[in-house]
Amino acid sequence: MKKLLLFIAIFFYHLMGFAQKVDFYQKERAQWLKIAEQTTPKLVETIKKPLSIVRLEKNEKKFQHWDTKPQTEAKNLFKDSFKKQAGVILDFGEHLTGFVTFSVEDFGRAADAPIRLKFTFGEVPAEVAEPFDPFKGGLSRAWLQDEIITISEVPKTITIPRRVAFRYVKIELLGSSVYSDFKISDLFVKATTSVKQSAVPLAKGTPEMIQKIDQIGLNTLKECMQTVYEDGPKRDRRLWIGDLYLESLANIYSFKNHELTKHCLYLLAGLSYEDGVAPSNVFERPKPHPQINPLFDYALIYNVALKEYLQATGDKKTALDLWKVAKKQIEIPKKYLGEDGMLDYQKAGKEWWLFFDWRNGLDKQAALQGVVIWAYKNTYELAKMLGKEQEVKELPALIQKMTEATHRTLYDTQKGVFVSGKDQQISYCSQAWMILSGVASQTEGKKALENVIAHTDAVKPGAPYLYHYVIEAMIQVGLKEEAKGLLINYWGDMVNKGADTFWEVYDPQDDFLSPYNAYLINSYCHAWSCTPVYFIRKYPDIFQH
Amino acid sequence: MKKLLLFIAIFFYHLMGFAQKVDFYQKERAQWLKIAEQTTPKLVETIKKPLSIVRLEKNEKKFQHWDTKPQTEAKNLFKDSFKKQAGVILDFGEHLTGFVTFSVEDFGRAADAPIRLKFTFGEVPAEVAEPFDPFKGGLSRAWLQDEIITISEVPKTITIPRRVAFRYVKIELLGSSVYSDFKISDLFVKATTSVKQSAVPLAKGTPEMIQKIDQIGLNTLKECMQTVYEDGPKRDRRLWIGDLYLESLANIYSFKNHELTKHCLYLLAGLSYEDGVAPSNVFERPKPHPQINPLFDYALIYNVALKEYLQATGDKKTALDLWKVAKKQIEIPKKYLGEDGMLDYQKAGKEWWLFFDWRNGLDKQAALQGVVIWAYKNTYELAKMLGKEQEVKELPALIQKMTEATHRTLYDTQKGVFVSGKDQQISYCSQAWMILSGVASQTEGKKALENVIAHTDAVKPGAPYLYHYVIEAMIQVGLKEEAKGLLINYWGDMVNKGADTFWEVYDPQDDFLSPYNAYLINSYCHAWSCTPVYFIRKYPDIFQH
Repeated sequence: MKKLLLFIAIFFYHLMGFAQKVDFYQKERAQWLKIAEQTTPKLVETIKKPLSIVRLEKNEKKFQHWDTKPQTEAKNLFKDSFKKQAGVILDFGEHLTGFVTFSVEDFGRAADAPIRLKFTFGEVPAEVAEPFDPFKGGLSRAWLQDEIITISEVPKTITIPRRVAFRYVKIELLGSSVYSDFKISDLFVKATTSVKQSAVPLAKGTPEMIQKIDQIGLNTLKECMQTVYEDGPKRDRRLWIGDLYLESLANIYSFKNHELTKHCLYLLAGLSYEDGVAPSNVFERPKPHPQINPLFDYALIYNVALKEYLQATGDKKTALDLWKVAKKQIEIPKKYLGEDGMLDYQKAGKEWWLFFDWRNGLDKQAALQGVVIWAYKNTYELAKMLGKEQEVKELPALIQKMTEATHRTLYDTQKGVFVSGKDQQISYCSQAWMILSGVASQTEGKKALENVIAHTDAVKPGAPYLYHYVIEAMIQVGLKEEAKGLLINYWGDMVNKGADTFWEVYDPQDDFLSPYNAYLINSYCHAWSCTPVYFIRKYPDIFQH
Repeated sequence: MKKLLLFIAIFFYHLMGFAQKVDFYQKERAQWLKIAEQTTPKLVETIKKPLSIVRLEKNEKKFQHWDTKPQTEAKNLFKDSFKKQAGVILDFGEHLTGFVTFSVEDFGRAADAPIRLKFTFGEVPAEVAEPFDPFKGGLSRAWLQDEIITISEVPKTITIPRRVAFRYVKIELLGSSVYSDFKISDLFVKATTSVKQSAVPLAKGTPEMIQKIDQIGLNTLKECMQTVYEDGPKRDRRLWIGDLYLESLANIYSFKNHELTKHCLYLLAGLSYEDGVAPSNVFERPKPHPQINPLFDYALIYNVALKEYLQATGDKKTALDLWKVAKKQIEIPKKYLGEDGMLDYQKAGKEWWLFFDWRNGLDKQAALQGVVIWAYKNTYELAKMLGKEQEVKELPALIQKMTEATHRTLYDTQKGVFVSGKDQQISYCSQAWMILSGVASQTEGKKALENVIAHTDAVKPGAPYLYHYVIEAMIQVGLKEEAKGLLINYWGDMVNKGADTFWEVYDPQDDFLSPYNAYLINSYCHAWSCTPVYFIRKYPDIFQH
């Protein structure tokens, strides 16, 4: 509730800001949106059929305490009375995203009454094992993927009008004639992705677990790559800057669909808020529009994503065209920057959503200092590649000032860690951002990470998104084996628990963790969890041996 | 359960019969179906909007104990937050049949999550007041008119893919974003009927209650007249011979859409069972097909409907074309006819569904004798109009023999009533059919009806369908005031209870009566209940003063 009130307050704060100003991108917006539209990827469609019929079994050793047992081939569903098979669970054997079509036919005498079926789509077994209602979660109940369909006439072929993301489908019979029977004579999904080419195979001899993590990461990325980099094809089905950044990194080292990145960078630019801030997230449909939900760290990450795109593609035309957005984002922190080189993180936290991780109680002061310095450095690199240093010539001094101030304020020399906030909180998040920003020296950073690992009270990462930055920081300070170990521990644990795609939220100690107070609504194919693809392929010396 | 087993036994009995024979209408069937297709009426479509928002109130004095109280104009729904109005009940002010379209729009900030709405359509208030589940009724739960719709993108206009029949719509909110709101910005139904011209007004001075009954009867008929004479637009949405007969009679005296009658007679002929029996009921969609469910009395009534059609239109071409069907139906009873002129009604009851009325415990011997004699007489009249007497020349002698045998066997001289079955049951049904068949003389019939009215243990009619034959019998024996009184009592009682259209089942003593053990699944706009239109308009001297 407190979060919601904060959210609403932030919303109105920004709304008032918009009301006073003209559109910062008045001249460019239409053209950016036009290019975004022109670069919309054509989806690759594949018809996929279910492989088997499975039975669910309660098993406390399995993920969320559910196991699936194959019973028979899926095609047997299509041959026999559905009344006899009501409640059946189909297994497609892999995570898929698309539109499901099914057919019903008379079985024996002609139907004399409508049929009412309930389809429940699950990315993980729990979603087809447990009831959705009553729903107590903090997000829309409508994200849960169950659809009730009335079929007035038999035979009939129906495409369920909602796109779904799933591996399992449960089909229940809610109503039918007592006099006649029917069969489900066909069921398939038209699966979509904008991935066009396969990733190159890993080096021979790559450990099996790394191979598995890579493959599942690729599957995750492939499923999230639709007409934008979605955060999750089940939920929230939209383009967030944070997810885009990690997806596009993984894409650079795998599917190389740079057109999709370009499309997304233009879409975000074209849908920027009128005050010039890059939108935390945007929707494509029914027509492109942003969610009015400004997010401090994501706005700055736009610049880093643009720089990475330019580095990977050499597409200066796009980067120059979007430079105005990057230049504008560096203004955001200035308002909160004190004479001492420290940001007023409490004021920023009142006026903005600061994300960094899903973890209650995480203090974000250090991360905020870190992300700003890091984004400034990346923006300056981008400027240099574009010959635009003069336009951001204040950055080097700013970076230096902030770096020194941060080190002075947040480094606890005695403990050998970076602390955050008035309670001097110690967290993985803070160490990671201090390293990535360069506030920590190589030696300090290494020590800080080692210390935080040893420090049992340290605030641990909550979601895979932050694990990315932690592993990147480990690699940066030379903790290569630790980085590999963490990747294998964290993602490998999901593999061992049967993941087909990597999950939005995963706590090895708690299969039921949910930021929404409802683990069934978690996304189990989530963009920001595909990041092992990037690590394994960018750092073959660390991971592929 | 017993009924179901009988049903299945009958089904297999007839199925075996079909398997042995060639198609009796091999030569004619294709042509009949072609004419049926060519005569499919074009529906008249009208856009209708809801009139008001109503509140439900428990009131034991109202039909099924629910009253509706108008709250405000329906258009207020479209202006305001739906979250504030969730659970709203819209009142269209009249019974309508068609496809419902609604629109959702953002209210305030843009939606960031799908919306899940539940629409419940009710012909009567109880359907939008009481939960449908758990459903214990004997028919498909899918007939109940609730649809759950997921809206992935806002704004959006959606047409619910199922045709519905209703006056009231309840809209519940099952899921939406906690951050954003929306409004239902529009909702309408594209209402359909095949009625093209209004009925002439009743005579000036017609009693107000008769006027009301006539109007509601017309509404009922109008709603049931779609591309066939449906039995009920909510349920079972198909063409039954019994309903066709009463609807076409009412149509002759009101809307005069004789093309629809012709279409239905051809459709039934074209879909007759292969042994030549006219199908009790047929479906138009997805392609025309009969329900394999032979019904003795309905098969014979086909002939009467054809005769009435010919009399009303003079369309000899159609009647001659379909004469073969009529001629075949008169064979059905012969198999059960004993030397003594009495039908083996027990054997017939095992091999056929005998309907006559929804009333448990009703003995059908007398009704069976009556309907056969009556249908034979009508068929002979039809033959005479077509110059085909020679083809059915056995009928006059058969009629006489059966009439005499029936009178001898079933007339209880002492009690002055007709009895039925081994327990000599006394019922309205038996008296009606003894009169309509002419087994009873005018005097006997009059006395029998008077006696049955006085006889408190007599089995009363269960459904409006039988009331038709009772009132027709009353008129035939000169009980004109009683006929008018019964019509006003029975249908007027529905009017007083707030009927917009007349109901499939109505017992003045029991608002909750249902042949399906679930009154919410009853049809509240049912073809066979439109018959007052026929009486009021055919017999103005009795009813219109």
